[in-house]
Amino acid sequence: MKLATFTENHRRRLGIVTGDTIVDLAATAPNLPQTMIPFLRAGEAAMSAARAAVESGRGHLPLAKVRLEAPVPRPGKVLAIGLNYADHVREGNRPIPEHQIWFAKQATCIAGPNDAIQIPKVSDKIDFEAELCIVIGRKCRHVPAARAFEVIAGFMCGNDVSVRDWQQRSPTMMMGKGFDTHGPTGPWIVTPDEIKDVHALPIRCVLNGEVMQNASTAEMIFKIPAQIEHLTAAFTLEPGDVIFTGTPAGVGNFRNPPVRLKAGDKVRVEIDGIGVIENVCEAERGETVIL
Amino acid sequence: MKLATFTENHRRRLGIVTGDTIVDLAATAPNLPQTMIPFLRAGEAAMSAARAAVESGRGHLPLAKVRLEAPVPRPGKVLAIGLNYADHVREGNRPIPEHQIWFAKQATCIAGPNDAIQIPKVSDKIDFEAELCIVIGRKCRHVPAARAFEVIAGFMCGNDVSVRDWQQRSPTMMMGKGFDTHGPTGPWIVTPDEIKDVHALPIRCVLNGEVMQNASTAEMIFKIPAQIEHLTAAFTLEPGDVIFTGTPAGVGNFRNPPVRLKAGDKVRVEIDGIGVIENVCEAERGETVIL
Repeated sequence: MKLATFTENHRRRLGIVTGDTIVDLAATAPNLPQTMIPFLRAGEAAMSAARAAVESGRGHLPLAKVRLEAPVPRPGKVLAIGLNYADHVREGNRPIPEHQIWFAKQATCIAGPNDAIQIPKVSDKIDFEAELCIVIGRKCRHVPAARAFEVIAGFMCGNDVSVRDWQQRSPTMMMGKGFDTHGPTGPWIVTPDEIKDVHALPIRCVLNGEVMQNASTAEMIFKIPAQIEHLTAAFTLEPGDVIFTGTPAGVGNFRNPPVRLKAGDKVRVEIDGIGVIENVCEAERGETVIL
Repeated sequence: MKLATFTENHRRRLGIVTGDTIVDLAATAPNLPQTMIPFLRAGEAAMSAARAAVESGRGHLPLAKVRLEAPVPRPGKVLAIGLNYADHVREGNRPIPEHQIWFAKQATCIAGPNDAIQIPKVSDKIDFEAELCIVIGRKCRHVPAARAFEVIAGFMCGNDVSVRDWQQRSPTMMMGKGFDTHGPTGPWIVTPDEIKDVHALPIRCVLNGEVMQNASTAEMIFKIPAQIEHLTAAFTLEPGDVIFTGTPAGVGNFRNPPVRLKAGDKVRVEIDGIGVIENVCEAERGETVIL
């Protein structure tokens, strides 16, 4: 199943994507929660009701007539692992990490599959990172690797947009990873039953039509079960938490000369079996806002 | 004003602390939001209504009869600056940082002023860090230092409990900073009008009756206005976001021999003009939880 958050006729709600239509859950299953985190919290009962809604054949809208939003517009956590594809580690001349290297993106940086990426006022060293994202489906702690897939609601594409000078100014990376709009995700959450092997998915980043990253999720150094075991040894994960699982080689920063995102650039992240997100870059206005 | 989240008679709500009583806002101002983030979002109107509730003289409960909770039980962001007191930088033999070093704590690590701190199963290298915390009061971006105090709702005590081996295993620090229960905060939010100079507050950490940290917020390298300008150059801050502003010298990790928190330890963070939080350490049970 492909779970989406979408807006149509000025109203944001949940839908299930089937081919070139989306089943409007507000119309077909009005008793279900109509935002993603409460829907995921409702667990298997909500999933079953959504499947039944699709099978009813009612409530189909043309996908082209709605705006897809970030599937989880405001996650409780947005975590990301660094240096998790060997070729990417090598292109940066770093040693293969012995331990998992985690940093945080900000929940406020999440953007939709077709939202603009802002080129910030304070930097012109903006980069793309195609990533497979996990969405957590159950509240959990101390999950052994062997049970990790029990806590996953599904997968989506993500772009871990990075402000390289801000990232590199501090060993903690965080400041360069959470700029507003720098977490495009989507286009929907694909449930695990639709994916034969999440560690065998072709993943690409395409910038203005040119393939910049072209790899397979098979190349992850720390696989998803190890990631979930490690994270939950320290803290609780909850429905809607988003995990960026690392980026392969080919980022702009390590090219010669470096490639930087600039206003007008069109950047796509494609993962076979999941979908495509495409975001256009635009200069941020950068004014002071105090609401 | 001292804004608190408290539980009494199994019901969690907001209150204003005055001396040894707490004014129950659910009883005296039932039209106000009864959780902290919506209250802060309601801005000056809510603050004025709360002041009026206190002046009405009604709804007083003895402070000793309620349980104080984390003032913001689930912040949207929990950010923390590292190496921000010169003596603490020196005790770790590090150079004074040229740029602000920020890392994330997890929203799920927030604990109340008297909640237990869990000693995790996976480490025995647990440490305390007394810190002044900021609570953000307005949604904001690109806030210049000169306007930083406009976006602050108030201040509280925090303990940036740290798992040193997990922190040091990765340059990003994050994994060692967000264990469940490792963000005790409180005992309440003191509004800025009650504090003459937030950069002249004595701050202490007391472990089992022994003073371990004893400093002044005057010693911060990057002061609060610079912190807010820096953070909001990158991303939006929102009401209820919590910022840990750094810890002074005296942490357990740099003592000889190192001091580690263990089950049964009682650790207090005291900031003059703000209050005291005191948390007892206990071993976590550490079982797998998948809800």
